[in-house]
Amino acid sequence: MSFQNPVFIPGPTNLPESIRKACDMPTLDHRSPAFARIFKPAVEGVRRVLKMDAGEVILIPSTGTGGWEAAVSNTLSPGDTVLAARFGMFSHRWIDLCQRHGLNVQIIETPWGQGAPLAAIEAALKADKSIKAVLATHNETATGVKSDIAGIRRAMDAAGHGAMLMVDGVSSIGSMPFEFSAWGVDIAVAGSQKGFMLPAGLAILGISPKAISAMETATLPRTFFDFKDMLTSYARGGFPYTPPVGLIAGLAHAIELLESECLDNVYARHHRLAEGVRRAITAWGMTPYAATPDLYSDTVTAVKVPAGCDGTALVQLAASKYGVAFGVGLGEVAGKVFRIGHLGMLTDVMVLSGLATAEMCMADLGWPITLGSGVAAAQDYYRGTVPALAMAAE
Amino acid sequence: MSFQNPVFIPGPTNLPESIRKACDMPTLDHRSPAFARIFKPAVEGVRRVLKMDAGEVILIPSTGTGGWEAAVSNTLSPGDTVLAARFGMFSHRWIDLCQRHGLNVQIIETPWGQGAPLAAIEAALKADKSIKAVLATHNETATGVKSDIAGIRRAMDAAGHGAMLMVDGVSSIGSMPFEFSAWGVDIAVAGSQKGFMLPAGLAILGISPKAISAMETATLPRTFFDFKDMLTSYARGGFPYTPPVGLIAGLAHAIELLESECLDNVYARHHRLAEGVRRAITAWGMTPYAATPDLYSDTVTAVKVPAGCDGTALVQLAASKYGVAFGVGLGEVAGKVFRIGHLGMLTDVMVLSGLATAEMCMADLGWPITLGSGVAAAQDYYRGTVPALAMAAE
Amino acid sequence: MSFQNPVFIPGPTNLPESIRKACDMPTLDHRSPAFARIFKPAVEGVRRVLKMDAGEVILIPSTGTGGWEAAVSNTLSPGDTVLAARFGMFSHRWIDLCQRHGLNVQIIETPWGQGAPLAAIEAALKADKSIKAVLATHNETATGVKSDIAGIRRAMDAAGHGAMLMVDGVSSIGSMPFEFSAWGVDIAVAGSQKGFMLPAGLAILGISPKAISAMETATLPRTFFDFKDMLTSYARGGFPYTPPVGLIAGLAHAIELLESECLDNVYARHHRLAEGVRRAITAWGMTPYAATPDLYSDTVTAVKVPAGCDGTALVQLAASKYGVAFGVGLGEVAGKVFRIGHLGMLTDVMVLSGLATAEMCMADLGWPITLGSGVAAAQDYYRGTVPALAMAAE
Amino acid sequence: MSFQNPVFIPGPTNLPESIRKACDMPTLDHRSPAFARIFKPAVEGVRRVLKMDAGEVILIPSTGTGGWEAAVSNTLSPGDTVLAARFGMFSHRWIDLCQRHGLNVQIIETPWGQGAPLAAIEAALKADKSIKAVLATHNETATGVKSDIAGIRRAMDAAGHGAMLMVDGVSSIGSMPFEFSAWGVDIAVAGSQKGFMLPAGLAILGISPKAISAMETATLPRTFFDFKDMLTSYARGGFPYTPPVGLIAGLAHAIELLESECLDNVYARHHRLAEGVRRAITAWGMTPYAATPDLYSDTVTAVKVPAGCDGTALVQLAASKYGVAFGVGLGEVAGKVFRIGHLGMLTDVMVLSGLATAEMCMADLGWPITLGSGVAAAQDYYRGTVPALAMAAE
Repeated sequence: MSFQNPVFIPGPTNLPESIRKACDMPTLDHRSPAFARIFKPAVEGVRRVLKMDAGEVILIPSTGTGGWEAAVSNTLSPGDTVLAARFGMFSHRWIDLCQRHGLNVQIIETPWGQGAPLAAIEAALKADKSIKAVLATHNETATGVKSDIAGIRRAMDAAGHGAMLMVDGVSSIGSMPFEFSAWGVDIAVAGSQKGFMLPAGLAILGISPKAISAMETATLPRTFFDFKDMLTSYARGGFPYTPPVGLIAGLAHAIELLESECLDNVYARHHRLAEGVRRAITAWGMTPYAATPDLYSDTVTAVKVPAGCDGTALVQLAASKYGVAFGVGLGEVAGKVFRIGHLGMLTDVMVLSGLATAEMCMADLGWPITLGSGVAAAQDYYRGTVPALAMAAE
Repeated sequence: MSFQNPVFIPGPTNLPESIRKACDMPTLDHRSPAFARIFKPAVEGVRRVLKMDAGEVILIPSTGTGGWEAAVSNTLSPGDTVLAARFGMFSHRWIDLCQRHGLNVQIIETPWGQGAPLAAIEAALKADKSIKAVLATHNETATGVKSDIAGIRRAMDAAGHGAMLMVDGVSSIGSMPFEFSAWGVDIAVAGSQKGFMLPAGLAILGISPKAISAMETATLPRTFFDFKDMLTSYARGGFPYTPPVGLIAGLAHAIELLESECLDNVYARHHRLAEGVRRAITAWGMTPYAATPDLYSDTVTAVKVPAGCDGTALVQLAASKYGVAFGVGLGEVAGKVFRIGHLGMLTDVMVLSGLATAEMCMADLGWPITLGSGVAAAQDYYRGTVPALAMAAE
Repeated sequence: MSFQNPVFIPGPTNLPESIRKACDMPTLDHRSPAFARIFKPAVEGVRRVLKMDAGEVILIPSTGTGGWEAAVSNTLSPGDTVLAARFGMFSHRWIDLCQRHGLNVQIIETPWGQGAPLAAIEAALKADKSIKAVLATHNETATGVKSDIAGIRRAMDAAGHGAMLMVDGVSSIGSMPFEFSAWGVDIAVAGSQKGFMLPAGLAILGISPKAISAMETATLPRTFFDFKDMLTSYARGGFPYTPPVGLIAGLAHAIELLESECLDNVYARHHRLAEGVRRAITAWGMTPYAATPDLYSDTVTAVKVPAGCDGTALVQLAASKYGVAFGVGLGEVAGKVFRIGHLGMLTDVMVLSGLATAEMCMADLGWPITLGSGVAAAQDYYRGTVPALAMAAE
Repeated sequence: MSFQNPVFIPGPTNLPESIRKACDMPTLDHRSPAFARIFKPAVEGVRRVLKMDAGEVILIPSTGTGGWEAAVSNTLSPGDTVLAARFGMFSHRWIDLCQRHGLNVQIIETPWGQGAPLAAIEAALKADKSIKAVLATHNETATGVKSDIAGIRRAMDAAGHGAMLMVDGVSSIGSMPFEFSAWGVDIAVAGSQKGFMLPAGLAILGISPKAISAMETATLPRTFFDFKDMLTSYARGGFPYTPPVGLIAGLAHAIELLESECLDNVYARHHRLAEGVRRAITAWGMTPYAATPDLYSDTVTAVKVPAGCDGTALVQLAASKYGVAFGVGLGEVAGKVFRIGHLGMLTDVMVLSGLATAEMCMADLGWPITLGSGVAAAQDYYRGTVPALAMAAE
């Protein structure tokens, strides 16, 4: 029997019914005006979600990794210097990508569990005026840590530095507050499968006028990812190659959903679900891997497991015995954490089932746990915090 | 945001993904051989699920109520006497239907919470040889009580009585053991939306050779429900009017799912989920409305609420505050119970979310409850009883 | 390879994408307010499509046959006299249903290919004041003949007769003009699978205040079809038994589609498609079975086949060789006609493929036909009659 | 009314019902064994469709353009020389991509309407032993021309040249015979949205052992497209980043469909549909743009329009007036042709509707055309060539 429980991975998220239907469409001629009628609202919607006053939106049939590559290859040239902190698997991978593309990456090694080190960034920028771009991972999915992007902008300004600010917002955008223009972001990278609650397959980027200018001189090779080809085609209502029409239609619909709820409510919803998870973790006598509460991500929590326990074993047992998906620890936190994704299409009621499953696994594995303890802590929090809206409407 | 939690009503059940897809099909010419290729496996599959050695299967675009009416109108004549016990809303409604159709119903009034009174049935049969049919509600959905159909057959045999045995199996068939031929059932009535995990819209009947013979002399009027029209058309691979092709395709697929799991495993799965619910109820200090454990239904539990508490208020709060559907008490148990459906497409993990929601509602309503207590009891039971099969395969 | 061509049967129609999606929904608690939010717009929409000033709408999980039975059993008593003309398979079947339910049917035998004989009806009414109801088949699907319902009302008025007027609008409503109140209809019966472009499974009725009054004294037995149970439940936002929620949601959406096009445009679209088919038939040297142009149905055409040709053979060949579904001749026109359904989700372009297929079959069967001749006639008509609307919008 | 006609563009194709359902799936943990159970059959199936004896299959969430870029960037280094003929928009674009990536492209300019010039290729190879790769467009979608890939291999062998052979099979693979190993192909590039009948979003590549070796020394930068990352992850049953699970599931299903029909039958079906289109074109007094019959593509035909006529106007009118999509002429054949795609999910019956639509547009535009003439020619051909299989089965 293939009965489907909700997933609790940090993306792809559970898919809302109406988004699945928006994506699943018959073939439409992507060279006809009908395509423009789908594409334009998607692009305009992304602009609003990112809070962009200026610049352009780019959609690429790709993933977050492709989005990073597009950001780098359109704006930089071999040998250029970029600055990046490494404090998790995804900040690491972006650095690796830059190195493979012949960039000189100044790496600020930062303990996992910490966020972007503002002071060190400022110092590095002051010391090296040749840095072309600062790379920032808004939400490090591996450790459940959010970084202070506005703070990075302040550090850049304090250093009087003209580098571009490139932000990996794959696991934050659409779920946690993001301010493209207010934070002075030059390139933001998102993916369809996280806050936008779509299947994987679409990289979603916002690019500032400064990033657009950088295209002119950047010599890293690109064709599939070329922003100029994109913008030229977009201006004619088209796409430089065959677009994934269903995903784009789904994106337009997803943004309608997010905006009909109101983005601030979306963020509050994610915070509420996340806080319930954190209450449960505390009741279990455990802690998030994120070093301090200001770093807690509202989309994913990496739970530090007790000494002698193996987080990966819990994830495997949850999948094999209960049909529930959590995330394993990656890289240097492999085994030391398990991760609970709490973003996208998810309710308090679903989260409780995830917490209950984790508890059963812990008991099965002999971890010190009282069944129902985390659930009770989350129940207590959730029942006191249901938004008035949810009670009034469907 | 219309995010969808599982439902915990006693049908329609949550729908498996693959059944939804089987039902959602483009138009097919129902007068072509392509229809027969869908229809025949559905009919043959029902025969196996009901465990019919002889007789015919009838599918009617209708509901359980329509199935009752078909059973009665095809086999009985105005003024005929039938015997029925009344111990819940659904046994009541079938009686009411018979009365409206001009039958003389000998009613054995039985306390709600009890099942079919075997001794009283036997006595009634011995006393009245004119009884044409015994009506039995296998699973009384209003009280969560299952009746002993084999016992009724024994009572009929003990009375040496030739009446037909008509069984309402709407909320049992496909979820709890059913033995059409071994129990000497003459008409069994099921519905698409319970154990078969389909949308509502199809009454599913098994009819014995004796019931088929009874058609010849029965004078209650019928056309839409006429078995003879059905059987004549079926023999030609067709249907007497436009059939609901999608539901029939879905039925064939549902039976494939049930049989690939093995019917005995399906029944064991329902028992396991139900038992977890009952453990939770006990932990809450409450009891099922069913009078004794041998009467406990494995598809629905009516939970007796503490004195001074209102079961209907809990159901309304769960819907309005948490977006979770339970069943209210009906008729004479209105307010005195709330009902948890645990049939069809449901996992242990989903059940835990339902129990957790009920607990939040109880706390919200000021009922005496410890959050997490019922969840913990169910967790403890579930984690000790996962079938080996589930652990081995997807 | 199961590649799907459009169907050209007189219902069920091809299904619009968005209607399929509206029907295919997850389980919703039909006892919750969420159901009323789906149900009420469907009921109100039907009222508008039928053009009802007064009376009630009834939705039954059933088919057109069930709708007929509901009409009769709720308003008549055994032995009552009804008047009906017989001029096709569907008018015949309704008569048969009445007879099985113990009604006395005054039958006006009318040649197939003719419509309702107004003068004979008037005469019969004048002669027999005991007639309780006049049954009229608005669109005889077997012969492709429409009848003049307004004319029947005039005949009834001319006779000063107080009988109820019951209309089978299964294959007309939603595709051809219908005026419930203006025509003085007492019961109109429609089905989901024709003009509403839904899967089969829902009988849709409009009932007048007079029909509602008739319920009080009518003694034919009914429970599943009982209007009073329906209306009582509807008033509470519910249903007397488990409703087919997906079909009802689909109905509400279908009416949105029809009304967004505007009903008059819907009727004009059907007329245009039908006229193209008739031009093709003429080009083939054949004629519609309907006796005169004023009788031509805009939803289905029964094509009279040349002497020595077998219409059923064409239908079978189209299905087996080309995967295209037409309708066979039924009853006394079996073999003498084949039927082309041209209602519901269909475009001029699709119709051309149906005509082209029919031509290939004719050639295959050795009928006297010039390939492309009917297609050309229809092309010529269609290209001159595209509505301005279609050219402006998608 | 958004009623949907089939599309006649050269991809994306119309989508089979079952493929849409296979793609539209709930979220699955792509790091779990469940993903491998979907992924592995897809990869193995591609291997069979390409007829690969050795080498590896690569799937990238991307498009054909991304596939080209992956082919080039994984195997070549800046300054490397590649050989390519230019005879249409897609051969042109691949050349452009190479140039942007710093390759030295020896271009053999060839008249549009011709295929790959075998003699010129052989001569060029004999003259320049430094050529690292020969790029070949198997089916030039812009002109409807297929090239002789086996012939190119013979030319390479005749020249005794060790270059890699890279083939753009985007609009041929899955629809026309392809022999990866027999033809000595080193990299074949396909896309999901053509012969595989899926939505756009997946580049599908076969790479030979020689291409795999070339990865070791190739210095063009790549991360998203990196074959080594792919192969390393695949070996563990995973993907280097979030895979488009639905498209991969759909791919596995599409290959089941193709293989259940038998690939040779799939190719024969495409040939039959294409030949019917060509018969129609001849009846119109027009010709395919492809110079000679041996060059005729079986997936797309570019129709040379009469002098003074504008092919683009026909395409625009078909879309705006009839809701039917054809392809415009691209680049130097803009206006001079219109294109009829005849690949993927399409039947003879559907093709006839496309031809009929084209005829109506021609008449509307005042082109010299007899309505029904092309349809009749295609009908005559189609009705004589239905495969026995299609008549026997559904």
